[in-house]
Amino acid sequence: MRITVPAGGVGAARFLRGLRAAVPDADITVIGNTGDDFAPFGLHVCPDLDTVMYTLGGGISEEQGWGRDGESHVVLSELAAYGAGPGWFGLGDLDIATHILRTQLLAEGRTLSEATRVLCDRWQPGVTLLPMSDDPVRTHVTVELDGRDQVVHFQEWWVRLHAAVPARKIEAVGAATAKPAPGVIEAIDAADFVLLPPSNPVVSTGVILAVPGIADAIRAKTVVGVSPIIGGAPVRGMADACLAAIGVQTSAIAVGAHYGADLLDGWLVDDRDKDAVEAPELAGIAVRNRPLYMTSVAASAEIARAAVELALEVLQ
Amino acid sequence: MRITVPAGGVGAARFLRGLRAAVPDADITVIGNTGDDFAPFGLHVCPDLDTVMYTLGGGISEEQGWGRDGESHVVLSELAAYGAGPGWFGLGDLDIATHILRTQLLAEGRTLSEATRVLCDRWQPGVTLLPMSDDPVRTHVTVELDGRDQVVHFQEWWVRLHAAVPARKIEAVGAATAKPAPGVIEAIDAADFVLLPPSNPVVSTGVILAVPGIADAIRAKTVVGVSPIIGGAPVRGMADACLAAIGVQTSAIAVGAHYGADLLDGWLVDDRDKDAVEAPELAGIAVRNRPLYMTSVAASAEIARAAVELALEVLQ
Repeated sequence: MRITVPAGGVGAARFLRGLRAAVPDADITVIGNTGDDFAPFGLHVCPDLDTVMYTLGGGISEEQGWGRDGESHVVLSELAAYGAGPGWFGLGDLDIATHILRTQLLAEGRTLSEATRVLCDRWQPGVTLLPMSDDPVRTHVTVELDGRDQVVHFQEWWVRLHAAVPARKIEAVGAATAKPAPGVIEAIDAADFVLLPPSNPVVSTGVILAVPGIADAIRAKTVVGVSPIIGGAPVRGMADACLAAIGVQTSAIAVGAHYGADLLDGWLVDDRDKDAVEAPELAGIAVRNRPLYMTSVAASAEIARAAVELALEVLQ
Repeated sequence: MRITVPAGGVGAARFLRGLRAAVPDADITVIGNTGDDFAPFGLHVCPDLDTVMYTLGGGISEEQGWGRDGESHVVLSELAAYGAGPGWFGLGDLDIATHILRTQLLAEGRTLSEATRVLCDRWQPGVTLLPMSDDPVRTHVTVELDGRDQVVHFQEWWVRLHAAVPARKIEAVGAATAKPAPGVIEAIDAADFVLLPPSNPVVSTGVILAVPGIADAIRAKTVVGVSPIIGGAPVRGMADACLAAIGVQTSAIAVGAHYGADLLDGWLVDDRDKDAVEAPELAGIAVRNRPLYMTSVAASAEIARAAVELALEVLQ
């Protein structure tokens, strides 16, 4: 079975860990969002790719959901002693090694795909992890700060400002001219179906879909999504703040309708959102409800199994 | 009193610490060797500049003579887990923060002089620390390895091979076309005298002198050197292996004669080398002997004071 999964960070990583457990023989390709990438201290950091890689490779901090287990922060403290920032992005020493190596590989002329392969050679995530593009895409957020509109990098809004300042606009700069990374379109075309994990519909899945060619390729396939919204609130993170910026309600129905019937064939929602099953907004989409909290690897595997079963059902 | 000091690493740093103690009111400019610079993992490392900066700034590992006190090695171990090298260069986590910041500043278009100033803003070494040049100069060593001549970076020969493989040739690549960094010639011209600390005459002082304009400017000044050779052996390091490559004997007399009377006005040797005082090879140079082992800051200060006194004596 071949499954392709466009992925954001923590939610996607946990879903993928469940998927790998649910269908161990499946050939899984992950298309990682790179719109969150940024370069604190000149180090090329790929938060979403790394969260997937560390989670599937067994190196993740389970407590945080991102970053490395058993982390220390000597380098960051030392950079702070130099007065260098940003200090608000919690780069640990183990994690920094990943970024140093990636930055070195890129400086030597390797693509992000190639660098990702080198890093995965160590972590052996059990999936093929591809960046959505080797071209730079940066998610920028327009916020009102100090009485005027300012454009900040997504990470600054998300991590430093905790998305507490309303976003007026969210833009994936560079997406319109980015090319899908080698293997991305091929992996979608070759897939039996595509699964959308419970990632942020705007800044994760939305950014991946903004790379020309990817959305069209996905629309041609059977697609089942897992709602990142449960009972009117994001399972994790601040997806509500992102949805507000694009005028979409924070509900399983609204997010399903935002993806739409021309993308989605199936939509998995939580039991609390079972009104979505018969919702007219989701006409043409097979909606199923079940518990969606990924409280353990076993729970994630059950959710992933339900997504696979729904995909196989709508495939027929 | 204005003093300018071309400096290598550990020997120069300890001498400078003594000099600062001996003449606390002096205005000291240090011209640091950058031929040893290299870029493990793409990080721009300046071993000599950093050794001077850390030693004078109070952050040095006294035990090693280089690197930071209280150092850990999380990042390097982690890079090794990725199979990335070189693992033989003992980069600690605190030290890596320095290199990350320097690399970032250089990538942003700052010069090495500017980056050095930013780093020294924190360390406050009490001297003006200038790189010899903002242009890249790399000391390469030709050695016989695996039965054939191979060119390796100085650090590989020095650190990985412990200079145990004889050097056939030592070359400061880029030196001939490098320009002295801003302020270097001015600091020499404005100095009351120049002191040569007990640095490696070939790969430290020799490389600085190879940058066009620096040797000429120094020759025009009163210059007093401190012998890095005591009793026929280097005080520290493997200067003998470097001297052999250029056909100079490992003796206080031979090194003094190598610099020559047109550069040196005074030459400080150890009591064990008092035969140098009357040596015909050193005709025209005022040679004095005294204990030269820098066993403590106080001992270094006494040596520095003797060098200053000799400079003032020959100035008259």
